[in-house]
Amino acid sequence: MTTTITLDEALNLSISVLIDNGFSKNHAQSIARVIWACQRDECQSHGLYRLLVCVHTLRSGKVSPDAEPEISDAADTLVRVDARGAYSLLAFDMGRPLLVEKSRRHGMAALAINHCYHFSALWPEIEAIAAEGLVAIAMTPSHSWVAPYGGTKGVFGTNPLAFAWPRPGGQPFVFDFATSAAARGEIELHRRAGKAIPEGWAVDKDGNPTTDAQAAMAGAMLTFGGYKGSALSAMIELMAGPLIGDFLSLESQAYDAGAGATPYHGELIIAIDPKTFMGPDWTRHTDRAEALFEAIIDQGARLPSQRRYEARARSLETGTVTIPAKLYEDILALLKP
Amino acid sequence: MTTTITLDEALNLSISVLIDNGFSKNHAQSIARVIWACQRDECQSHGLYRLLVCVHTLRSGKVSPDAEPEISDAADTLVRVDARGAYSLLAFDMGRPLLVEKSRRHGMAALAINHCYHFSALWPEIEAIAAEGLVAIAMTPSHSWVAPYGGTKGVFGTNPLAFAWPRPGGQPFVFDFATSAAARGEIELHRRAGKAIPEGWAVDKDGNPTTDAQAAMAGAMLTFGGYKGSALSAMIELMAGPLIGDFLSLESQAYDAGAGATPYHGELIIAIDPKTFMGPDWTRHTDRAEALFEAIIDQGARLPSQRRYEARARSLETGTVTIPAKLYEDILALLKP
Repeated sequence: MTTTITLDEALNLSISVLIDNGFSKNHAQSIARVIWACQRDECQSHGLYRLLVCVHTLRSGKVSPDAEPEISDAADTLVRVDARGAYSLLAFDMGRPLLVEKSRRHGMAALAINHCYHFSALWPEIEAIAAEGLVAIAMTPSHSWVAPYGGTKGVFGTNPLAFAWPRPGGQPFVFDFATSAAARGEIELHRRAGKAIPEGWAVDKDGNPTTDAQAAMAGAMLTFGGYKGSALSAMIELMAGPLIGDFLSLESQAYDAGAGATPYHGELIIAIDPKTFMGPDWTRHTDRAEALFEAIIDQGARLPSQRRYEARARSLETGTVTIPAKLYEDILALLKP
Repeated sequence: MTTTITLDEALNLSISVLIDNGFSKNHAQSIARVIWACQRDECQSHGLYRLLVCVHTLRSGKVSPDAEPEISDAADTLVRVDARGAYSLLAFDMGRPLLVEKSRRHGMAALAINHCYHFSALWPEIEAIAAEGLVAIAMTPSHSWVAPYGGTKGVFGTNPLAFAWPRPGGQPFVFDFATSAAARGEIELHRRAGKAIPEGWAVDKDGNPTTDAQAAMAGAMLTFGGYKGSALSAMIELMAGPLIGDFLSLESQAYDAGAGATPYHGELIIAIDPKTFMGPDWTRHTDRAEALFEAIIDQGARLPSQRRYEARARSLETGTVTIPAKLYEDILALLKP
């Protein structure tokens, strides 16, 4: 059973649900736009379903619904935005203009978001930076669910890394992946369905490899790509944690104190101006990048963002999104009577 | 049969072999120091053995033995060094002071080395930056030996990524890994030994998975970590290629025109000043990073650089390095009579 609604309704409903439950208008708009974009691109796990999670987290008393982000011009290459215990998305929207300006003026710059709750995919943010003609990298820790290579206990978060490369006259080259072997939500889905998980995703609480989703949730997840993925996850943990003066995934987990709320930590976004880095011949070097993409596509391989762009085109074509009917009902139930 | 020589002899012999074969004194010293450091840390593949490769590449007429690197202050956050067809290492040594100065002044900065031959591990360079108290990231393309995920033809290089995090009073946290599933040298070693390679390393020239090392060398290597490793490799290809106005791995391969010489391309190194990024409380955030390392080590897992540091301690303790006797003879034979 599914329900199809228009894109406009999806956005307006999202804003209304958030406002009706106590979020300020600014926060509601920033959160709703990202949830809407994910639904439009058929990322069900980060789409309208997240409205339930946002309201749940707010009701658990963890996240601020209305804190105004505090922006500071911390250095030539650093914009710092203190989210003050609210979700990250308004902080990103408010910090982005200065990030863009700084990276154009100095060649590159970073946006450090501190003290934020974080639930969202990173690609909507770096797509917005690529839309300004800039290369973007984003990363965050999460809760300490993931064991380091050779270990058995959670230390890292699922630590996503996202990258965007602007393309002339087209959608940017974008990837956004967790450095854990699988998303935590995927293990949870296997658990609910009573299905075994593949080997290599997790260990049980005693550190033994497991294909039991329940045992995996009680144990630790593993990184993708063995020791290399583990090293990459450590880099993300350090750069989007201590480097910006914010929590490790271990600290986010401890701070949660068993509430099961959204992780609370920082986020690091780096923007680079390709015109500065490429030099005066920049169109030639942009063409080089296009030649790389062609060499990938011409052999039948896909660019990382291709599937998402296809979904987006479908949604924009029909002007609608389709979600489970039960989810639609649950969302409507969150509106003020 | 092995030969043991002192660390001093290893360094002096390296410098002499390079000078005797036509490298300028400055190039010889920069190259020899890195080769020596790798041998000291028991990285045999990047140690004294590379002297043979350097001389071979020089004799093939590809690399300039004496071009003086040209440094330009390209932007607040960008030092550009044109290696002018020589090896990358002197360019790095000459560009590093301005990179360090810029990252201290502006918060972060990048060093783009252009038009260089590149054969060296990245960790000696980022270790040198970490020794200045800075966080460092380095990446390069190579030759287009590696197929993208879902493809069968080489597009990416082995595209290494290296990261260094300075630690108070100790050796930095460092990793340096190829984004290919295995090093090309490892496949070559299997080929020479007539041994099968593991599944997942390569495809044959028709794009079929292969465990035949010979067929792998004629086909394409694969990235580590499936589509995620492939995405990461694309990021490195873009950032250390077009972004700094230099060759793709595809172009390096084409430029080589079958000579089998060292790849020719650019290198990107980013340095970040943690004191700026962490803010006034920086010692507290440095302690956070130490807590992360402890949480990894305390459960019996290893930090990525641990094995190399142990090797270094052994070499410094004995004051010697040990290499195959035949390699030592081959190196001596390169000295002027």
